Formats: sequence, structure tokens, C-alpha cells
Amino acid sequence: MSPSIQESIHLMGRQARTAAYRLAQLSSEQKNAVLRAMASALREATPEILAANALDREAAASRGLAPAMLDRLRLDAVRIEAMAAGVEQVATLPDPVGQCIESWQRPNGMCIEQVRVPIGTIGIIYESRPNVTADAAVLCFKTGNATILRGGSEAIHSNRAIATALQAGGAAVGLPEHAIQLIPFTDRESVAVLARMDQWLDLIIPRGGKGLIETVVSHARMPVIKHYDGICHLYADAHADIPMAVALTVDSKTQKCGVCNALETLLVHGDIAADFLPAVATALRAKGVELRGCEATRAILTGVTAATEADWRTEYLDLILSIRIVDSLEQAIAHINDYGSHHTDTIVTRDETTAERFLREVDSACVFHNVSTRFADGGEFGFGAEIGISTDKLHARGPMGLRELTSYQYRVRGSGQMKGSGVIS
Amino acid sequence: MSPSIQESIHLMGRQARTAAYRLAQLSSEQKNAVLRAMASALREATPEILAANALDREAAASRGLAPAMLDRLRLDAVRIEAMAAGVEQVATLPDPVGQCIESWQRPNGMCIEQVRVPIGTIGIIYESRPNVTADAAVLCFKTGNATILRGGSEAIHSNRAIATALQAGGAAVGLPEHAIQLIPFTDRESVAVLARMDQWLDLIIPRGGKGLIETVVSHARMPVIKHYDGICHLYADAHADIPMAVALTVDSKTQKCGVCNALETLLVHGDIAADFLPAVATALRAKGVELRGCEATRAILTGVTAATEADWRTEYLDLILSIRIVDSLEQAIAHINDYGSHHTDTIVTRDETTAERFLREVDSACVFHNVSTRFADGGEFGFGAEIGISTDKLHARGPMGLRELTSYQYRVRGSGQMKGSGVIS
Repeated sequence: MSPSIQESIHLMGRQARTAAYRLAQLSSEQKNAVLRAMASALREATPEILAANALDREAAASRGLAPAMLDRLRLDAVRIEAMAAGVEQVATLPDPVGQCIESWQRPNGMCIEQVRVPIGTIGIIYESRPNVTADAAVLCFKTGNATILRGGSEAIHSNRAIATALQAGGAAVGLPEHAIQLIPFTDRESVAVLARMDQWLDLIIPRGGKGLIETVVSHARMPVIKHYDGICHLYADAHADIPMAVALTVDSKTQKCGVCNALETLLVHGDIAADFLPAVATALRAKGVELRGCEATRAILTGVTAATEADWRTEYLDLILSIRIVDSLEQAIAHINDYGSHHTDTIVTRDETTAERFLREVDSACVFHNVSTRFADGGEFGFGAEIGISTDKLHARGPMGLRELTSYQYRVRGSGQMKGSGVIS
Repeated sequence: MSPSIQESIHLMGRQARTAAYRLAQLSSEQKNAVLRAMASALREATPEILAANALDREAAASRGLAPAMLDRLRLDAVRIEAMAAGVEQVATLPDPVGQCIESWQRPNGMCIEQVRVPIGTIGIIYESRPNVTADAAVLCFKTGNATILRGGSEAIHSNRAIATALQAGGAAVGLPEHAIQLIPFTDRESVAVLARMDQWLDLIIPRGGKGLIETVVSHARMPVIKHYDGICHLYADAHADIPMAVALTVDSKTQKCGVCNALETLLVHGDIAADFLPAVATALRAKGVELRGCEATRAILTGVTAATEADWRTEYLDLILSIRIVDSLEQAIAHINDYGSHHTDTIVTRDETTAERFLREVDSACVFHNVSTRFADGGEFGFGAEIGISTDKLHARGPMGLRELTSYQYRVRGSGQMKGSGVIS
């Protein structure tokens, strides 16, 4: 453990805590003015951000990064404008902080109010995409939280340029000092230091692959909100409308296949398999999808590879779909609860009773009836913004918007109530 | 790591997961019937529980346990009846599971419903008091969660007898197998195994001293809800009603001093110190309270020990109070945010503006105006039951009732909505 890295990250933690107390006192209007100023600053800093991004891309290219990774890293004027517009969009969203969740009066006369407050200090650890610097910092700021950002080494110049623009733009109109801090170190050690720093950090959100999340979870002493895999299922029930089941399967699998709410496994009730599978296979193959199936599937469809046990547990993020024929709703639910990742699962059926059992018994963040899995998304849910889709069950589950970046506080107003002997007269 | 301990705890984890799926499907009526049967079983098992408790107490006495600890361990017919009555009381409480938190329709016609569901599987790690076995298991069961209990070694016979009564009583009327399991091991290793078992456990709640919580936090891979210290403050403002400030100080400090919501530090505005301090000191000393104060306090009151920096950070849980004179509301708030434990803090003042600033700027779970700190309690808040008072900010903060033992799920009902190309006709 290098003392200088630890000391400087701990200093950032202390500074974040101080900033958080100031942030909690800002009005919605003050915060929105800061957001608009940040958006302008991002636009004005376009040349600096592009220059910094060029450095990152040169380094990445010389290290032989894959084209997909290079594209994630790449910023251009259009992407910077989209980032700035995103910041402005957050300014227009309702502010959950200060909202009364519930209030009631007790028989002794005290009035209890449960009010949304910021969480406090949030650490965000992310990988290659530099726009996360702005997206995450701005959602945390809107909810009155101080942020410590730790981005990946491959985007460090871009991340610095973006953070600098946000800080400078915001500072001019009242952004508290140290409200948004970027860790200058990109080694693994800095992740461990941040994850253990529970005296200064209330929450840590890792955004990235399983390896990153695992590193954070194994070190973390504070709560972690995880965004693990989406192994999403569509179950075509015996009473499914077959054209709808075909259309929803194709949409869920192919509308965008590299995302966590894309379909990975299709479950089909045996009663409709002979009608449904040929139709859905034709439609999927027209979109270039490779099919892998159980033995019963392969008895109906030709050209289907045998699905292994590993297939049922795989998030392909690609144009591949595993297919299994089941005998019953119970078997479909058991498969999903056993092999799935508790992210998003959908049933297609005309039978309301079956649908309701599926919604109640599948243990996933999002359970859908006659809807594409692709709707598991903060934007599609109407949240206006999304910090991610939680696969945890505590605090936040499923799509996380601004509200999920808040905590609450009980405010109690009385007139001298005592536990021992009633109200003072 | 002993493989047998790890294997048998992991087996309990797998069994708990299976039980959790069954528990989630029980109706409120089924669960309440189980609770009533458990209460009867506890009453009927009184002889067995007392015999087991005698074994624990003999072992504790021979190891020379302190009288206060021996009393915590002790069960008698009255305490077992109270435990049974507590279980019956939980049966009468409203069931949060299945409750619709919010529902709305999207422009594309999908209906989104956010519904309370059980968390799943919960580990409870606790120390000497055997009644926690029933209290915790029953609150988790009412909310549809499977529980794995790991009590302290000093109460192992009592815990086993209580768990056996709950399991046998419940099983007769439909308690799923493995819904309530007690770990038979009482060594430290079993705590570490449980805390690392995130594949089977959704949440862990340590109930006990700092040492226990620290052990759990340092090993845990799943969310932990912590119940740390209450270093609670009362701030007597310049505009305090002095008789009320005296009464609330005495109630907060002395109504019961060994609990987390008892007062530990009194902050006094300089403007009222000369009037208020002598009055409050007389009332506190009449109750046997030892006073420790800052220099300014000692200039007004005689017989007050000098408070050290450590006093401001100490949860006495005893008839001791530290007193500090401050110059301003800001100084009071800064003291509380710096030295407090973010549990419960109260202001006494007639000035509404000052009170509102205090409520907004003190970063604690419970912030009170003209109310005794002793009201920070699930029962006093009207929750009907309390699993503890969380000092965390994520998921649950402050008094935790049944609702805080639930998660939620998004249930979406549609008619063929696709992301790609609208609704299927």
C-alpha cells in the first residue's frame, strides 16, 4: 500500500464529506443553475476535451485495443454535444431531495415526517467510456451528493478534461468546492483504497464488467450497488398469441443485442413448440441470430446447436439465443429462478391467471407480461435519467433514477413530549 | 477453514433460498396462522426452554459472567410469555408484502407497478439475549423472508430450544421447511462463513457490540444493515423554553440510560447558559447523573469534571452527561455532525426558523424539535415492531419496522409493446 495514494484518496474523502454538507443545503434552483453552467462549460471545452481524447486514443491504439473498445473511448463533437444536452436534461427533472415521503401524527401529538435527503458521498468506479464522468457526476450532484470518480486508465486524459470543465463551469455559479472529484490514480490499488474508505464514503457504485465488480465487492466496507449481468428470459406460454410471441422474441433479442436487458434464453411451452418454434426461428435467422437448443428443440428445428448447461448461465450480449422447451409454467419459473440473473423476465400469454403467477413467482427486478425485455430501462420507465439497473435487492432494485440516489431522514416536531411522563404543560 | 462448518452453512444457505421462494407465495392469513401456532408452541415448550436456559446460565456462572450479562441471558416464565405475546402481536400487524408502492401508465400503454416483495434470505448474527431468536425470526417470517440465525455461544441451548419450538409449532400449519434455521456452531469462523456467503444470503444484520459488527463488515460480501452507537445530542438554543429544555434533558438522559437513543451530550447556547445550566444540573444530579463539561460550563457549574475530546465521541450508556457551551446554531450543528453518530439529535427552541435549520442541516437518521431523544424507536413511531435502528443511510435509516424488511419488484403489464416498432396490432 503506497502511503501517498492512500493519503491523497483519504483527503479527497474528507473533502467530499465537507462538500456533501454544503450540497445538501442547495435549493433545486441553485442546483439547476449549476447544471446549466456545466453544460455550457462542456460545450466551450470541446477543443480541450477532443485533444485529451486524442491522447487516450493514441495510447489505446498503440496498445492494440480492440475496435469496439476504441469506439467506446472515442469522443467527437457530436458526442460532446450529447453529453452537454444530457446535463441540461437533468436540470429539467424534478428534484427528489426535500420531498416528503410520508407524514403522520402520533397519539402524543408529535408529528413525524419522512423526508428524502441526499445519501452523502458516493464513489463511482467505471471503465472505458469517458462520458460516464459527466453522466454519473451530474446525477449525483442533482441529488445533492458529493462524488468521487475513479475512471479507467485508458480514458484518464478525457476524464480529466471533462471533470475540469464540470468543476470550472459549476464553480462560477456556486458548485461547492470538492463536490465532484476525480481520482488521478488509475491503478488497482486506488480501487481498493476507495472501497475500504467507509469513514468518508456512504456508497460505492461500480460500473463495468464482472472483474471490476468482484474487486469492489471483495474490498468494500460500505454498501455497494451492483449492476451485474442480465440473463433475461422470454417464456412463450401454452396460451401465447403466437405472432406476438414471435415479435416480442425478435425485439427482445435483436433490437440491440449488446445490452443487459436483451433476451438470452427463450423458454417455450411444449404445447405450442411445434407451431411457434419454426416461426420464431425463421424470424430470428432473418436477423442473423444463431440458435442453440435443448434436445426437444433440436427435434423440431434443424440446424440448431445443442445447448449446454453453460448456455443457460451465459449472457451472450451477441446474436445468439438459447432455447428450451418446458412442460409447465412451474418448470419455466424454476428455470428462470435457477439460471437467470434476476434482472428482467417476460411471459407472453393470453391467460391472465398464468401471467399473474409468473409475475408473482419469478424473483427478478423486472417481471413483464406481453412486453419486450428491452423496456427494462429508467428512460422507458419514465425516470428521465438512469444511473444503472441494480441487480441488488437492498435499497434499489431494477432501473435506478434520481430517487434511488437519495436516503431519507425522520423529522419529528413536538411540544415537549417526554417518554417518562407525558407532555410538559 | 474447517470444510465441515463451511459445507454445512452453505447447505443451510441453499435450503434457505428454496424456503424463501415458498415463503414469498404465502398469503398474509397463512403467515398469521403460522405465527399464532408458533406463539402456542413457545408457551407449551416453556419447561424445555427453561431447562435449556438453566444449562446456559450454569455454564455462564461457572465462567464468571458479569451479573448484567447473566440477567440478559436469563429466561423465566414471564419472559417466555412476553416472547409468545410478542409473536402474537406480529400476527396482528399489517403485512407489507404485496403492497403496491406506486403504479403508473406509460405513453405506449404499458402499466408499471412497483410492488413490495420479501428481500429473500436474511442472516441474523446476535449475542447473548436468547429472545432475539424469536423476535428476529418472526419479523423476518412475517415479511416472507427465510432466516439463518447465528446466536452467541453463551445462549446456545436456549436458542436451540426456542428455534425448535418455533419450527415445530409452525411446521404443523404450513411453515415451509428451512424457513427458520439456527446455525449450531458458535465459533467466530461461522460468522465469517455466513458473511461471505453472498450466493445464498441477500442481507446480513448483526445485532450486538462494535466488535461483532466490525467482524461482519470486514468479511461481508452482501449488504449489511448496521446498528452502531447512538451518541445523541440535545441542543438548548438561545430561544429555548428553559423548563422544557430541563425536562427534555432529564427525560432523554435518565428515563433509561443504557439504550442507544439516550442522551450523551448536551449543547447549550451561551446566551442561556447562566440560567439554564444551574437548573438542569440540579435536576440531573437529583437523578444521580455525573456531569462532564467544557471550560465555559465549568466556569458556571461547580463540581463538573473537565470533558476531554474523547468524551464528545463516547456513548456512555450510563448516568454520565457531557456538556458543551456553543456560540451559535452553526457551531451546534457542526459539533453534532462531527462528533455524533448520526443517530438521533434534538433541538429545544421556540424559534421555528432555527428549528427548521437544525432539522435540515443535522445529518442524522432522526432529527427532533422539542421532543425527547427517547422517542427514536419503531414502537414510538407507530411501526408496531422494530428489528433495530439503522445507522446506515442505504435501504433503511433510523427505526426499522416490517416495511424495511422488504424489497420491491417492478411488474409491467402490456399488450405486445416492442422497443423497435411500437405495439403489435
